[in-house]
Amino acid sequence: MNRRGHLLLGCLVVWLWVTGNVVATDPLPSWNDTLPKQAVVAFVQNVTQQGKAGFVPVSDRIAVFDNDGTLWAEQPMYFQAMFVLDRIRLIAPEHPQWQTEEPFASVLKGDMKAAFAGGEHALLQMLMATHAGTTTEEFEQMVLEWTQQARHPKTGKLLTDMVYQPMLELLQYLRDNLFKVYIVSGGGIEFMRPWTERVYGIPPEQVIGSSIKTRFEIRDGNPVIVRLPELNFIDDKAGKPAAIQHHIGRRPLLAVGNSDGDLQMMQWTAAGSGPRFCLYLHHTDAQREWAYDRNSHVGRLDKGLTEAVAKGWTVVSMKDDWRTVWPEASAEPADTVKPSLVGKWLVEDIRGAGVLDRLQTTLQIEADGAVSGNTGVNQYCGQAIIDKNQIKFGPLVSTRRAGPEAAMKQESQYTKALEETASHRLDSNGQLHLLDNEGKIVLKFSRMND
Amino acid sequence: MNRRGHLLLGCLVVWLWVTGNVVATDPLPSWNDTLPKQAVVAFVQNVTQQGKAGFVPVSDRIAVFDNDGTLWAEQPMYFQAMFVLDRIRLIAPEHPQWQTEEPFASVLKGDMKAAFAGGEHALLQMLMATHAGTTTEEFEQMVLEWTQQARHPKTGKLLTDMVYQPMLELLQYLRDNLFKVYIVSGGGIEFMRPWTERVYGIPPEQVIGSSIKTRFEIRDGNPVIVRLPELNFIDDKAGKPAAIQHHIGRRPLLAVGNSDGDLQMMQWTAAGSGPRFCLYLHHTDAQREWAYDRNSHVGRLDKGLTEAVAKGWTVVSMKDDWRTVWPEASAEPADTVKPSLVGKWLVEDIRGAGVLDRLQTTLQIEADGAVSGNTGVNQYCGQAIIDKNQIKFGPLVSTRRAGPEAAMKQESQYTKALEETASHRLDSNGQLHLLDNEGKIVLKFSRMND
Repeated sequence: MNRRGHLLLGCLVVWLWVTGNVVATDPLPSWNDTLPKQAVVAFVQNVTQQGKAGFVPVSDRIAVFDNDGTLWAEQPMYFQAMFVLDRIRLIAPEHPQWQTEEPFASVLKGDMKAAFAGGEHALLQMLMATHAGTTTEEFEQMVLEWTQQARHPKTGKLLTDMVYQPMLELLQYLRDNLFKVYIVSGGGIEFMRPWTERVYGIPPEQVIGSSIKTRFEIRDGNPVIVRLPELNFIDDKAGKPAAIQHHIGRRPLLAVGNSDGDLQMMQWTAAGSGPRFCLYLHHTDAQREWAYDRNSHVGRLDKGLTEAVAKGWTVVSMKDDWRTVWPEASAEPADTVKPSLVGKWLVEDIRGAGVLDRLQTTLQIEADGAVSGNTGVNQYCGQAIIDKNQIKFGPLVSTRRAGPEAAMKQESQYTKALEETASHRLDSNGQLHLLDNEGKIVLKFSRMND
Repeated sequence: MNRRGHLLLGCLVVWLWVTGNVVATDPLPSWNDTLPKQAVVAFVQNVTQQGKAGFVPVSDRIAVFDNDGTLWAEQPMYFQAMFVLDRIRLIAPEHPQWQTEEPFASVLKGDMKAAFAGGEHALLQMLMATHAGTTTEEFEQMVLEWTQQARHPKTGKLLTDMVYQPMLELLQYLRDNLFKVYIVSGGGIEFMRPWTERVYGIPPEQVIGSSIKTRFEIRDGNPVIVRLPELNFIDDKAGKPAAIQHHIGRRPLLAVGNSDGDLQMMQWTAAGSGPRFCLYLHHTDAQREWAYDRNSHVGRLDKGLTEAVAKGWTVVSMKDDWRTVWPEASAEPADTVKPSLVGKWLVEDIRGAGVLDRLQTTLQIEADGAVSGNTGVNQYCGQAIIDKNQIKFGPLVSTRRAGPEAAMKQESQYTKALEETASHRLDSNGQLHLLDNEGKIVLKFSRMND
């Protein structure tokens, strides 16, 4: 529909609304018709309908949502921690000292317990190694590329599909009632912004989170903002109301969270004058999601649950109060890959033109479709979608080192060949052939010993 | 108009817009039809009209405006500095040590040169003494009360009337074209928020500024955010693009400023892809406002002017490019007060019931209508509007100490009497009588020796 069509439709909608000729549809179809849904609908009606006791002008309709465990899942670990680990593995070739330096050595060996044994210091080291040192635009690009292929270790879904359908509906319901909806998360502010508008409909200027310091500078005549390896603000617990005041300057009308990290934000919200609404999501659904609360190492809900009950805040039991948990579109099963494909492969030929002898170009395929390797110059990784003989490489992320001209040329031919790949076959010698959509062989690999 | 009426009107406007049956009116009537106006209108049309080469979707239409010297005046000193000085004078009775402690002693003696001689350290001391130590809500209230009566030392206008009419029109023109307009100022973020929506139509969540640190805590069961005497962020020069990224997370399309403090914000804006617009306001109008640039101690425009010319940014000469400078409503002349009223007065009687002997309640009236005094318990100040025999006390701000019950009772009777005052007269003995709107005497004063 063109712009004019949109406007005319918008006009029609306004007219229908004003004249009341609209059949009411359920704004929260994924919620069971239990107390939490009734409470939230009653609250929204109370503050938005002129003449109601609690009517609140549009400019004061501020809603704040936690992210991890509230809008998307947070098990078995915060998704941002997966970004940190993926990124360490990706850029490890640029940091040979990491092979022996903790916590990186443990990450590279896959020993997460040892990696996190260093506590807060180790965490900060990993955070800064993966979040600082780039410009804001480079970091945005990294996050964007990562979210396009990062999948959940248990469900195999894209992480950005591990969002709660009932919460997507609640966000939309509030926006339809002219609320301005913010994320207020302990997660990194610039880690969220690249994808929150696409996934939640929440624009970057309505995302509040933890941050590191930055510095504006002119590089070769080009202004950039550089991300520095120094913490700026932790947007958790007592930090949340302070950040809300700093970014918004108004007290929220409605706060939604799932852990003790959200308690102060709720206290601040609840203490405002007039009607206020606090909602805790309680993870009670081991079948469809996870069940955890007072003793969880991630997203602990202990003091918050006690206070919510004492103060009569709304507590949503995922198991009992949500009809569905996940958006329908993401119900696709995770890919599983033929065992014969899994392993490490060495490129022998690119489009019949051979390869440079001195350059090892590799491709490693995991059982879940994760791919990684080295072009001979740069490390790369990503996700392949594999279905029988079909194989399609999703967006690949790569380090950005420059090499000799011939090597760069081969790298470019190799990545182009991967992009053009449509199917695969294993020949009688055990070689892996990748073919384009015309059936021509674009890449030949031999299996490497592990 | 009720809500339904608003919606129907909105619908009509949309329809008229779509069908094009609207007579165009000049969106910038206070601008002369010179190059700057033509440039800004051409830019806005280019980025907002579908089909134009530079069309930009609504979500990316971000505009940033400096405040001091860009939206309101900044001479003879930043208005926030006037707040600092007023506040020091107001709360001085609570800090007897300030009589001898610099920089406060000099402020109280009216020696501003000596007060600022201590440089940055003295400035910080004054800033923290007046900006920290309260809750965010208390501070908001202080600022609100101050802006209701703070007047400009030269023009006598309310400071919030010392705003530029052409800029008010530009803000509205941008909003009409679906820009989201932000303030990005070196001024205090919480110093601006209480009044920017009323004065500029810019809501608190679109105000970015310098800040001190805060702390959330529960006081007697009530959650508060406390303002701490520690700098958090200076939103000036290279701080501005960093703050824009932190608060908005998008690069602006349009930046407006008036000093070297805005240069980096402009560089950051100009370096974005596609069409961008930078506008410098050059203070060239000694007659209607002030003329200053490369050598000014406030709002210096030196490097910025050079770069603007070199890069072809738009430079507005206030003298040449603005038809009018100030909003019409504020064209009222400053009040001048009869010399016979000016001076310090002692309360002798409140509504015929006498006064407590041991309590001195005083009223000082300045030539510009400023009033101050002591209730016997608390220091207060504010502004009186005086016209011939009419006298009306504007909102008075006051310290909040508690005294003995009888003293508090008298204080309350005194302030109530001031509120009810409608006129004054001087009797034959030189006593000052204040009368309510029924002509009854509510207060009698005798003149005190200076």
